Amino acid sequence: MTTSEAALIQRLRRTSAGSRNRASRQPGITLGIGDDAALFRPRRGHEIVLTCDWFLEGTHFLRDKHPADSVGWKSLARAVSDIAAMGAEPRSFLLSLALPESLTGRWLDQFLSGLRRAARKLHCPLAGGDTTRQSKVLINITVVGEVPANRAVLRSGARPGDLIYVSGRLGQAELGLHLLRGKPKIPNLSPAAKNAALKKHLYPEPRIVLARWLADRNLANSMMDLSDGLSTDLPRLCAASQVGALLDASQIPTAQFPKWNRAGKAHALPVLKINALGLALNGGDDYELLFTVSPTKSSRIPAQFQGHPLTAIGKITRNRAQILSHAGGRTQLLQPAGWDPFRP
Amino acid sequence: MTTSEAALIQRLRRTSAGSRNRASRQPGITLGIGDDAALFRPRRGHEIVLTCDWFLEGTHFLRDKHPADSVGWKSLARAVSDIAAMGAEPRSFLLSLALPESLTGRWLDQFLSGLRRAARKLHCPLAGGDTTRQSKVLINITVVGEVPANRAVLRSGARPGDLIYVSGRLGQAELGLHLLRGKPKIPNLSPAAKNAALKKHLYPEPRIVLARWLADRNLANSMMDLSDGLSTDLPRLCAASQVGALLDASQIPTAQFPKWNRAGKAHALPVLKINALGLALNGGDDYELLFTVSPTKSSRIPAQFQGHPLTAIGKITRNRAQILSHAGGRTQLLQPAGWDPFRP
Repeated sequence: MTTSEAALIQRLRRTSAGSRNRASRQPGITLGIGDDAALFRPRRGHEIVLTCDWFLEGTHFLRDKHPADSVGWKSLARAVSDIAAMGAEPRSFLLSLALPESLTGRWLDQFLSGLRRAARKLHCPLAGGDTTRQSKVLINITVVGEVPANRAVLRSGARPGDLIYVSGRLGQAELGLHLLRGKPKIPNLSPAAKNAALKKHLYPEPRIVLARWLADRNLANSMMDLSDGLSTDLPRLCAASQVGALLDASQIPTAQFPKWNRAGKAHALPVLKINALGLALNGGDDYELLFTVSPTKSSRIPAQFQGHPLTAIGKITRNRAQILSHAGGRTQLLQPAGWDPFRP
Repeated sequence: MTTSEAALIQRLRRTSAGSRNRASRQPGITLGIGDDAALFRPRRGHEIVLTCDWFLEGTHFLRDKHPADSVGWKSLARAVSDIAAMGAEPRSFLLSLALPESLTGRWLDQFLSGLRRAARKLHCPLAGGDTTRQSKVLINITVVGEVPANRAVLRSGARPGDLIYVSGRLGQAELGLHLLRGKPKIPNLSPAAKNAALKKHLYPEPRIVLARWLADRNLANSMMDLSDGLSTDLPRLCAASQVGALLDASQIPTAQFPKWNRAGKAHALPVLKINALGLALNGGDDYELLFTVSPTKSSRIPAQFQGHPLTAIGKITRNRAQILSHAGGRTQLLQPAGWDPFRP
């Protein structure tokens, strides 16, 4: 079977919300797939938020390990997470897709199914895109969102004394990746913990509602999403804000993990180099929120939001260093060891 | 030399216009590179126009043939052409770039130099993006533009009786590609014709001003840009408008080409299968405009606009077929033979 570009675009249309009457004065997509470009009518008094995100076979996902519908879901969810991290709401997305002819059947169907589910769940319909052929699957997603003017929460707003919060449990997605790869073997992990980690890795849910809630109430001075790991992302927030951070290792909410390992006890498998704190510091793909809150407002941050814990893990310092303090009083400089595609 | 993602982003910042004061009430980019997403303040009474475009090594350009600064220029110009084709003005772009470590030196410098020149020329500064490492150069460009509400010119507006116009001379960019590849050898081509063709292929200029001029005066019922070749793009416009077309082959403005070939005379090189009309019908990458005009308005279309010819090449018909009529009275169905990445 061969697929012309026109036939492929026809299939993509089913993922789109369709275009409304162009004369409509309602904000939103006024022209979808099928023209040179998409048309979008912004809400009055709002700013447009724009992001784009690679999702590449071999780099961001493994074709033999990741189900096609997870590739579809995750490619959109991770891009939407950047919109959420500004305190904005996603409105629409563009899909750039390149794939081998051999995947235009079943694989593409499942990919589009996952993408469609994410688009519905995240209220972010497809408005257009570009397709071409390649030997590997290449995905690039552009998301357009909206935020009331001057209400976006930036990385650059953290102030000395702010409490540093994270949502969710960190390192769970990285644990899911280990489970998916099947190495290292992680014994003694409960089926529930396994499922939670796999779900977090394959079908992440960007914290759109939480971020909007924080932005609407002006509770967060700074915010970003955790995509590359806390040890890599926190320094980015600190650099943008020209501040440092002191983290309390014992407060960092980690994935459920066998106790023996967390305590550092020797184990029969010498290759097992991962532990819960390491995963939480350096694991990527969590798509939780990292945000800072003035001490005067911290009492307004609930312990949980929609079932996800919100945890204060440290504070912002005037001293530019990022320091990790352990339970026994030992401190160390935080070493960025999360995801960086250019690190050798 | 190794390049961290942070260092690469730092170099990209020099391509960006920088962000203005966020409290500014002026429309435009209010937050550029360095956060989770870019912020853009739309003009009141305008719609947002969005497009994204692949530009991939091996598919859309050849690394050993195309200079890096042409890759930079063209990757932006061709995406902006889609915005222009709506009658809109480009405002800003996002760059998704993946490349091998070995190209992060001189090649990247020249790529960014070409990209920067295009951004200045097209008044379309960089607002953000995503970078990663890959074995081949992968580029995806998102452009955001603006058009006064309800003034965008779509593919779907062509009406039976409309005259079909094109800007410029068609097939010149494809001729440039042949010259760049060095095959087939094309004898008797003047140096001026060679230079014009190479420039058109390497550094195309989207017809932003012409398209705005047509849209502002409500002169074009339908419009698109010619990126994949007239024989492939015209059927798309006809399908969107549910009409057909009758083209006059003798009127199609072609590239300068040796006379002997155009007349179909035999030539010493039997491999020379290209001719000016074939290039004009099937050659890609011209980024000229294809638009249709009511007969009552055609007198307002000048013969030239900013030095580029505007030529009526046929008319829109109620009959859905696309027919090419030749000088001697012979007619044929137009066969889509332009660029389609999925055609085997």
